[in-house]
Amino acid sequence: MNFLEEKILTDGVIKPNNILKVDSFLNHQIEIDIIRQIAYEFKRRFRGVEVNRVLTIEASGIAIATLLGDLYDVPVVFAKKSETANSTDDKYMSQAYSFTHKRMNNVFISHPYLRPGEKVLIIDDFLADGQAVHALIDLVHQAGGEVAGIGIAIEKGQQRGGLELRQEGYHLESIAIIDNMDWHTQTIHFRPQPQQKLENTPIKAQ
Amino acid sequence: MNFLEEKILTDGVIKPNNILKVDSFLNHQIEIDIIRQIAYEFKRRFRGVEVNRVLTIEASGIAIATLLGDLYDVPVVFAKKSETANSTDDKYMSQAYSFTHKRMNNVFISHPYLRPGEKVLIIDDFLADGQAVHALIDLVHQAGGEVAGIGIAIEKGQQRGGLELRQEGYHLESIAIIDNMDWHTQTIHFRPQPQQKLENTPIKAQ
Repeated sequence: MNFLEEKILTDGVIKPNNILKVDSFLNHQIEIDIIRQIAYEFKRRFRGVEVNRVLTIEASGIAIATLLGDLYDVPVVFAKKSETANSTDDKYMSQAYSFTHKRMNNVFISHPYLRPGEKVLIIDDFLADGQAVHALIDLVHQAGGEVAGIGIAIEKGQQRGGLELRQEGYHLESIAIIDNMDWHTQTIHFRPQPQQKLENTPIKAQ
Repeated sequence: MNFLEEKILTDGVIKPNNILKVDSFLNHQIEIDIIRQIAYEFKRRFRGVEVNRVLTIEASGIAIATLLGDLYDVPVVFAKKSETANSTDDKYMSQAYSFTHKRMNNVFISHPYLRPGEKVLIIDDFLADGQAVHALIDLVHQAGGEVAGIGIAIEKGQQRGGLELRQEGYHLESIAIIDNMDWHTQTIHFRPQPQQKLENTPIKAQ
């Protein structure tokens, strides 16, 4: 069991209707140690992947993306959400349904902050139906960029987002994948993931 | 002129109606070097002040608050905004008018993430009329906490927020204070601030 799975078991709360609350460390209160460890884990899992920019969507992804941008020493950009579509003259615009707010949101990034040819690492705290991530992918492609990878803290494995993204061929890394959880018994089962292969990560003499 | 004033002159854009766009480094694209320097500058200006928690409001303040929480090694919490008032049973709730969206927003924090007796450092990217900061102060007081200080990246000095907060006795530190700016001539004047007094910061032998 990895650090994030352990943290979810310790501090996450299962609510009815398949809702997992991780407000206490990830998306309302931020525990810096956990967010930092998530950033380092993404850096490890995307080892060897060229990254020119870290992209997320407001608001919960910003803390992780900031610490990861710091590790990569690249700019971070967060897409903004809005119910109303203002002028799109200077913006890349896509759409995503918000299950939290039960409405369609416009998701946009101003032109200068995505560029043709850039290799973009997409980051978010949660992946469920993949609406937000697909909107971010759309924005990267509109700008002529390339998706270097997708890093998710917690994937809800019983929803379709992860399955679709893997079928579409994206390099998706989810640190914790919930295969099922049960409110009545307050139990969570995580999908087994490959262990860190120490034999493939030789220590280099500096 | 300090680092942030220089950055504003280099990369900020003055728009009509007294709007300063700093999208390229602060509140859409995030330049990590600048955000980190802002965090270190707050740490310096609040030297000697006890801080148990860093508080901001979604979304633009999260990056600065995350790096500052890292420097202080304390939890960060960001207040959430919502048009609609759901159940307030488990939340501290206040209100702030959003000039950007031209509407009143509810601003809330779930109960466990502010606590009685805590000394809270409030952080935001911009201060203009002070609506958001006053809502955050209200939340801290509802929880029985204490405002340790208020750190703002850019204060619009010709609007009333900064004046009111200083009159109310808060320890407010704004890294750049804009006294006036002019769209036609694309000029900005910053309010002079006390220089860092090196004589008051003796180097300690460890």
